[in-house]
Parts: sequence; C-alpha cells; structure tokens
Amino acid sequence: MKLLLIGANGTIGSIVREEMKKEAEIITAGRHHADISVDITSIESIKQMYKDVGKVDAVVNTAGAAHFAPLQKMTPEQNQVAVNSKLLGQVNLVILGMDAVTDNGSFTLTTGVLMDDPIKQAASAAMANGGVRAFVQSAAIEMPRGLRINHVSPTMLEVSAEKYGSLFQGFEPASSERIGLAYRKSIMGAQTGKGFYVY
Amino acid sequence: MKLLLIGANGTIGSIVREEMKKEAEIITAGRHHADISVDITSIESIKQMYKDVGKVDAVVNTAGAAHFAPLQKMTPEQNQVAVNSKLLGQVNLVILGMDAVTDNGSFTLTTGVLMDDPIKQAASAAMANGGVRAFVQSAAIEMPRGLRINHVSPTMLEVSAEKYGSLFQGFEPASSERIGLAYRKSIMGAQTGKGFYVY
Repeated sequence: MKLLLIGANGTIGSIVREEMKKEAEIITAGRHHADISVDITSIESIKQMYKDVGKVDAVVNTAGAAHFAPLQKMTPEQNQVAVNSKLLGQVNLVILGMDAVTDNGSFTLTTGVLMDDPIKQAASAAMANGGVRAFVQSAAIEMPRGLRINHVSPTMLEVSAEKYGSLFQGFEPASSERIGLAYRKSIMGAQTGKGFYVY
Repeated sequence: MKLLLIGANGTIGSIVREEMKKEAEIITAGRHHADISVDITSIESIKQMYKDVGKVDAVVNTAGAAHFAPLQKMTPEQNQVAVNSKLLGQVNLVILGMDAVTDNGSFTLTTGVLMDDPIKQAASAAMANGGVRAFVQSAAIEMPRGLRINHVSPTMLEVSAEKYGSLFQGFEPASSERIGLAYRKSIMGAQTGKGFYVY
C-alpha cells in the first residue's frame, strides 16, 4: 500500500514511519526534508501536494501547530495559528484529498489529550482538537467509495516527557509502541468515524 | 443582573429572553434590530460592542452560522463560514470579553447536537461545535475572578421541526422550555466548563 505521511519528520510522524514501514511504501511530506514539500496551512500547497503524489491508499497527518498562551492574554491572532494549522490544515487535507485516495482507503488525523483533559495555556490547541474530532465523526458518514476517516488522540509521549513533563503534571506518558498501534488500527483496520485514544 | 444576549432575535435567542426576563436586564445584541449592533465574525465589531455595553454579569451567545453542503463538494471557503462565525465568533466573544464581565459572572456559548449525532452535509457545523465544546472545557480552568463558562448544546427545536424536520430524521425535538432551562442552568447555576445537552 502507498501511504502519504504528512509531518513525517515530527516525533509522532517518526513513530508512524517505524510502525508502518513493513507494510507500506511511505511517501513523506512536510515543510522540510521530505519527499514532497507541503505547508498544511496553505490550500494551494495541499492541492499541489496531491497533484504531485498521485493516488495513495492512506493519508496520515501528524503535523499541526498551536500557540500556547494564558487565556487572559490570548489574542484572536494567536488563536489563528491552531485554526490554520491543527484544525483547517487537517480538515483541508481531507476535503481536498478525497479524490487522491483509492477505494476503501483511509484518512487518519491527529488530535490530542488536551481536548479531554485540559491544562493551562492550551485552550487554543484543545479547540482545534475538538473541532477535528467532531469533523471526523461527521465526515465519516459521507465518505464515498468505502473511504474511512479516523483520528488518533495521543497523550504526552514518553519520548517527550523530559521536554514537556513539567506542563503535563500527572499525565501518564504513552510509549511510542502504543501510539504506533493506534495509527496502525486506523490505517489497517476497518473502523471509521472513530477516535483512537492513547490514554 | 445585566445579561448581554448576542443573537437575541434568533429562535434560541428569543427563548433565552423569555426564560430570563424576570431575573435579568437583557441587553440585546445582533446584526439587526437589537440594542447594540454586532457582527461576531468581526473582531473590531466585538471590541466595539464591549466598549458600548460596559460591564455585564452574563454574556450569552446564541448566534452563529455554518454552511451546509455535501462533504464531497465542500470547499475550504465554504467551511470558513462556520470557522469565522460559530467557532471563532464565539471564542472571540470570550477572549475579548473577559474584562467586560463582573466577578463571578459567566459566559454561555451555543453548540449543538450535530457534533454528537451527525447528519449529512453538516460536517462543518459539527467541526465548529466540537471546537467550541473543547475550548469551553479548557478555558474554564483559566478563568479569573470566579468567571464561569459553559455551552448549551440543543437538538432540533420543536418550533423548528416543520422547517428542519426532514433533515433531522429520527431526532426527538426539544421543547423551548427545556432549551430555556439549559441556558438558565448555565447562567444562574454554579457549574463551569460544562456542556448542558438538551438531548
């Protein structure tokens, strides 16, 4: 199978590459050092990526940014980072990419624990994640040709605990193996409209 | 108490007015025929509204638009309607309005059943609603001065059943009384970070 992986060089992207490398020919996409250059905040860039890549059997996105700031200082402009990237970047990968995916293929998007278990300064990220979750559930009932769509919602990763652990007090870190399995379930399984929660 | 009600002339806005008229001095806001003119898709218009209104004890928003279209035909531009209105309109009412609300006051936003129980052509609305829900839960833990924030998620209303019933097949319509009570609970109660689901 051909798997288009956007955000392939990120922490989670690397986990997905490792998990799927035996089954899939992985086409990496991202802003730098990838087979195909893409900026998911740009509609034109997403369209160009799909033109370049041709048909694929699975699209997996692990890219997406959000601005972290105290709610009382958060500006609409700062909030727009998550809107353009984590939310609309992911939604646009789907609505602009349906024709690029073969019959019975799949989309797998990435949300995150903050939409369910909030921490300070993360309301913008939570918002974007919650939007993606609801979009996935709704889009699933309109997918043509047996296409599937799910999201994976990771908690803090073990490999990120040193960097982010002080923000995620009391969160049980997830192993890379568990994160990889959730993406595998979405890509290789038969479910659609679901969230696979690694927490 | 002073209650700023945005979307006051809409179906749900009218229900909130009826429900709260005994307890609250209601300042109506909306695009037309309201005490204060506001377009929630405009940051400048929201800022001007809060300047005009002074201090209030509760902000309730029942305004918000979304474009309904088959997923396969949905364009990023059409999806932007819900982003600008239902999602960011509501989020911006909070992040730009915290200083306008008195100590222990509240924000009440409006989501909707489509984020939990999808129908065709409504993925954009579902997305916006899901974003607002996650934002509310996260924002609640950062509210200063005892401010509270909740959302009310109505199903199809009995009063709208003739107009929208053919789209909402099998949905049990909610009475205006039940919808009003949910807003009352958010405004007059003590809970925060919650969704009050009228379904």
